[in-house]
Amino acid sequence: MKQHGVALRPHLKSAKSDQVARLATAGHNGGVTVSTLAEAEYFLRHGFDDIIYAVCMAPGKLPDADALISAGADLKLLVDSVEAASAIGSYEGADTFRVLIEVDSGDARTGVLPGSPELLEIAKILHESPGSELLGVLTHGGHSYVASNIPEIQKVAQQEREAVVTAAQKLRDAGLPCPMVSAGSTPTAVHGESFEGITEMRPGVYVFFDLDQLSRQVCTREELALSVLGTVISHNRHAGQIVTDTGALALSKDISANANWPQAGYGEVCDVLTLEQIDNLYVASVSQEHGVIPVSDPDIYEQLPIGSKVRILPNHACITAAAYTHYEVVEGNQVVDRWERVNGW
Amino acid sequence: MKQHGVALRPHLKSAKSDQVARLATAGHNGGVTVSTLAEAEYFLRHGFDDIIYAVCMAPGKLPDADALISAGADLKLLVDSVEAASAIGSYEGADTFRVLIEVDSGDARTGVLPGSPELLEIAKILHESPGSELLGVLTHGGHSYVASNIPEIQKVAQQEREAVVTAAQKLRDAGLPCPMVSAGSTPTAVHGESFEGITEMRPGVYVFFDLDQLSRQVCTREELALSVLGTVISHNRHAGQIVTDTGALALSKDISANANWPQAGYGEVCDVLTLEQIDNLYVASVSQEHGVIPVSDPDIYEQLPIGSKVRILPNHACITAAAYTHYEVVEGNQVVDRWERVNGW
Repeated sequence: MKQHGVALRPHLKSAKSDQVARLATAGHNGGVTVSTLAEAEYFLRHGFDDIIYAVCMAPGKLPDADALISAGADLKLLVDSVEAASAIGSYEGADTFRVLIEVDSGDARTGVLPGSPELLEIAKILHESPGSELLGVLTHGGHSYVASNIPEIQKVAQQEREAVVTAAQKLRDAGLPCPMVSAGSTPTAVHGESFEGITEMRPGVYVFFDLDQLSRQVCTREELALSVLGTVISHNRHAGQIVTDTGALALSKDISANANWPQAGYGEVCDVLTLEQIDNLYVASVSQEHGVIPVSDPDIYEQLPIGSKVRILPNHACITAAAYTHYEVVEGNQVVDRWERVNGW
Repeated sequence: MKQHGVALRPHLKSAKSDQVARLATAGHNGGVTVSTLAEAEYFLRHGFDDIIYAVCMAPGKLPDADALISAGADLKLLVDSVEAASAIGSYEGADTFRVLIEVDSGDARTGVLPGSPELLEIAKILHESPGSELLGVLTHGGHSYVASNIPEIQKVAQQEREAVVTAAQKLRDAGLPCPMVSAGSTPTAVHGESFEGITEMRPGVYVFFDLDQLSRQVCTREELALSVLGTVISHNRHAGQIVTDTGALALSKDISANANWPQAGYGEVCDVLTLEQIDNLYVASVSQEHGVIPVSDPDIYEQLPIGSKVRILPNHACITAAAYTHYEVVEGNQVVDRWERVNGW
């Protein structure tokens, strides 16, 4: 991002950890992104005050947001509707809410289209209401997560940039302020070719990467930083499989990498130290506390006896990590630290 | 279970809550089942001492099991291998481990086949080793979760019973003790026709039920006890959808009911008070904190304005509940209690 002259505002929904946040913001301006108000409260408490809550604001959450701002957060909210903008603008709290408008750049999840009349309607409400200040526009090119290769990601990055820059221009043409033009996803931050007109990018999963990102050419295998430690608990030779204690809760039921890599299953089974995949093994099915790994070569039963350890590379680091209260930080074969997480809402 | 003269040993992996455990064991003998040693520790601390840890034991977890037994737990372990039986039998701890042998009754996850030579080999090790006591056999007809209707479930229940009763008979024929013959899953406990020879059943998800169980004719809609409260955060009219703040973390990525009901998606969208589905709405896709609900009737935008609440019925209660630290217990439109959970490992 520095090379492109764009601020980095990491999305901390992936790691939810103040230690990771410190690494991710080192050398940058300290701005961060969150997906829940619980994260906002946690990161404020750990010294991060420049925060975008990048999920459309529900009016019922305004008292909690107001309390965070009163406690010192420069918390920026997001809206994509006249209703939410009006509720924020007319809210009688202790603080003025600083608000961004979400633009749909092709992901078709939330956000207004950059050419829609709602964009200016919402902007005017936010600019003119006593309770709110218009900060600009924000988009998330989330459809980069279904791109399969670099050219497809570059196309999404272009759509993302064009949509949010177009929306910013519409605001400025109408005489409205637009200091912030926020975009980003990990794939588009990594592979975007132009960031012209964008003021900041908000990648998230890049702090760990995962099989899904690897399958879409966003990272290298050596960059995968998060794995789940499992123990072999059964050799079911009559069914041709070993079974580990890493099931649906330990790995999550996210199988996003399978769109490109059907053999990713619920995760690749790797050597604990080298993190190299063992004989193409993967977790083919999960129940709550069981992970089933098909075995074709009977030597595997000798190589991985009952009680031995494996490391599983998950599909989607953000979703898998959410089952854990903390990270065990590993260097070589040593656990060197323990980093906490904030979970829940 | 009482009508069938069989003990009930509820599997507490579903609720992971001592208040639910108290309801589930009321009028029964107090025996329970767990899926992690963290659950065993929690339930022992809350007064439940008769516990089966129904996941094959890894030798590395024996010190923790030993500590729980020393603290007062009648903790029963499970094995399906000579290796684990030998490790348990020769472990030099403070206590003798009481152990069941897992039998594969057709689920093909873990367990030895009832006719396999390993069954007797493992049984003899457990019976003859100084560190272990053979308690009997255990099976889980987990393939009942892929049955689509009552006759299919009844067939699984018959397989489950025959396998575990056959294994028990093999032990007794060899002069080995087999006081416990443990079976069960919610579908087979609900729809099994004969329980002859079985001493106890271990259903779990029946404490809540869910769309998956409903789709397989295991419960009625009125019996669904667990839902996720969501808030409408966006009206994306250009994409024809409303979006809620209940995403992959709030609902889980479990879509098991879709095997029978493709329109279950990630959960059915219901009225907060009546729990009746609203206009066939369902969550069609999720990202971490967003749930996308397709809308064909534009009146829905009026019926569910930004900020309004909905209740989502999840596919699989056990997996969805795992994201939460507690339950809000609701009667009518009142939250009347808060029940804690034990998560993690």
